[in-house]
Amino acid sequence: MTVETKLARFDEVDLDIGSRIAPVEVAYETYGTLNAARDNAILIVHAFTGDAHAAGICPEDGKPGWWDNMIGPGKAFDTNKYFMICSNVLGGCRGTTGPSSINPATGKPYALSFPGVTIADMVRLQQMLVRHLGIERLLAVAGGSMGGMQALEWAVMYPEMVASAIPIATTARHSAQQIAFNEVGRQAIMADLNWNNGDYYGGNPPARGLAVARMVGHITFMSDDSMKQKFGRRLRDKETFSFDFSVDFEVESYLRYRGSQFVNRFDANSYLYITKALDYFDLANGYGSLAKAFEKTQARFLVISFTSDWLYPSYQSLEVVSALRGLNKDVAYCELESNYGHDAFLVDIGAQTEVVRGFLASTYREVSHQ
Amino acid sequence: MTVETKLARFDEVDLDIGSRIAPVEVAYETYGTLNAARDNAILIVHAFTGDAHAAGICPEDGKPGWWDNMIGPGKAFDTNKYFMICSNVLGGCRGTTGPSSINPATGKPYALSFPGVTIADMVRLQQMLVRHLGIERLLAVAGGSMGGMQALEWAVMYPEMVASAIPIATTARHSAQQIAFNEVGRQAIMADLNWNNGDYYGGNPPARGLAVARMVGHITFMSDDSMKQKFGRRLRDKETFSFDFSVDFEVESYLRYRGSQFVNRFDANSYLYITKALDYFDLANGYGSLAKAFEKTQARFLVISFTSDWLYPSYQSLEVVSALRGLNKDVAYCELESNYGHDAFLVDIGAQTEVVRGFLASTYREVSHQ
Repeated sequence: MTVETKLARFDEVDLDIGSRIAPVEVAYETYGTLNAARDNAILIVHAFTGDAHAAGICPEDGKPGWWDNMIGPGKAFDTNKYFMICSNVLGGCRGTTGPSSINPATGKPYALSFPGVTIADMVRLQQMLVRHLGIERLLAVAGGSMGGMQALEWAVMYPEMVASAIPIATTARHSAQQIAFNEVGRQAIMADLNWNNGDYYGGNPPARGLAVARMVGHITFMSDDSMKQKFGRRLRDKETFSFDFSVDFEVESYLRYRGSQFVNRFDANSYLYITKALDYFDLANGYGSLAKAFEKTQARFLVISFTSDWLYPSYQSLEVVSALRGLNKDVAYCELESNYGHDAFLVDIGAQTEVVRGFLASTYREVSHQ
Repeated sequence: MTVETKLARFDEVDLDIGSRIAPVEVAYETYGTLNAARDNAILIVHAFTGDAHAAGICPEDGKPGWWDNMIGPGKAFDTNKYFMICSNVLGGCRGTTGPSSINPATGKPYALSFPGVTIADMVRLQQMLVRHLGIERLLAVAGGSMGGMQALEWAVMYPEMVASAIPIATTARHSAQQIAFNEVGRQAIMADLNWNNGDYYGGNPPARGLAVARMVGHITFMSDDSMKQKFGRRLRDKETFSFDFSVDFEVESYLRYRGSQFVNRFDANSYLYITKALDYFDLANGYGSLAKAFEKTQARFLVISFTSDWLYPSYQSLEVVSALRGLNKDVAYCELESNYGHDAFLVDIGAQTEVVRGFLASTYREVSHQ
């Protein structure tokens, strides 16, 4: 299926920081058909560098969506049954208002005058979009990594609008190590002279710094074992070591390639803003504890983690599960066996498909009989 | 005890790459007294960014050596019994010839005209120093991380000179993930415009890139849990989030501080050369297998790893142990419980002290009765 990215425009969105962005645009895609009862809508929330193009084929460049293996006819998120929505996050650079957008007050890109945003702010804007589409209650909010944080935040902020939440490979709060990896990425960008305190639009972007930041990311997305299987110590197009600082190993070539590709599709300032939103994220912020935060949720939860994911390890999912169980909430937890590290929720989708499919079907039965 | 760094000078050292460095200087320190039989000498081999100052107090700056908790009277490496030697590695920047040294052919620093070096080259130069000090056979070669690689290489290259080897928190070959982390550090340095293709001596060094490289390193030295205990999500000198890109969290402050301190004591080109030596390291190079490499070793081995070390995980130590056991070599293996990650061999030395002390004593009994 080919798909189209649409834009919704709102007068303003309020921010945790106390200010607002006005106006604000949201890029989004939809797949499948909203039924007459309007009770089959599922919101997909994307990871850090994802975008609204979650499924189908983009007519311009022919590229499949980032979760196309999970969303479509007969897939885990079955578009024959459900109406799927995915939007680019606030602060992003893939159609939704972010630091690279034009600030109407100046006629120039916001750059660092863009206000700091949080996961809750992203969710607030998504809620406006969902209402705009005429939906009162979502059958599910589902996503991995930063998407999982948004799914948790949705269940907490809008309990009456969320029948179920599927947070995958995620956490209720960023740990010191997770903050540390993000800080390295930020420092790599800010060390690039082209960054110019965020004011590089119209000139050269801080491509070298951004590429280094992305390289760090890619290491954390894979497991030690999956890197061993994919690359090992194989040399790239040579028989012996170069003894200079060109590419020797396949894994170096892969990282350099991924880094250089990334700068073509991602804005360095968005990288800064979104990593800060991740680091600030603690579901207990403003509540005092995870249990207090979850107190009013009405959603059923399906929490998924992967055995080899060391970026968002299973113990963090278990903290969510424990807090929910302590409140006697409806929560299922699956730790899925996978070798793919954090990337598993994107690439190793066999078992994930089965548990999501079953969970959605039973949630839909419950919702549609209410 | 105050100590003094000495310099030894040799006409040349041969390199794996096929060329040589001539002349070559080695910075080294010694602690304790060589006995009349000359059979109580232990070589300490340092980790990546270490130096010859392993123990005692430097008279200039009052700083203790990097393994001062392990080396001294009554300590694991007891200077009342043993004569300890530690030298800075070839390619380093702490007194031994490296890329920041003057190339006698040009009168200018080598920079990138410095030849590529390997762990074996470092060991070759150390062997010249040990002979120079009048020692025919070392009671032990001991070190952690890159030091452990040198200890393994010593046992393989100079079997008749090594009575025992103590490789700690190390590996017989760098994995794809280990290469990947090093490559990120190299790319961060090379992305810094001040790097100038290595030609920055006399100008501004690539301090920002080197700091980013070091920050990545520090994350890998600690465990998720030790970062949680040391920093958690504590904010630095503030009550709420800054929503700019200044320091919010303690862990950010720590990493920035460590990064900025590092550039005062380490040369960016040495960073490049030594990380390449690490990545090239595979004890099986030139032998075909680990078993073949170990075939002629005469040393007893004490292999140590730490439970929370994810940079050099225990499975890599077990590969060494398995290869040695397969050859019926004398090998003891201790996986020590620690929360400190890779840093454990430097900071969590209680159990390490006990096993090293016992191992050295029994080795010395054997050696001195031969």
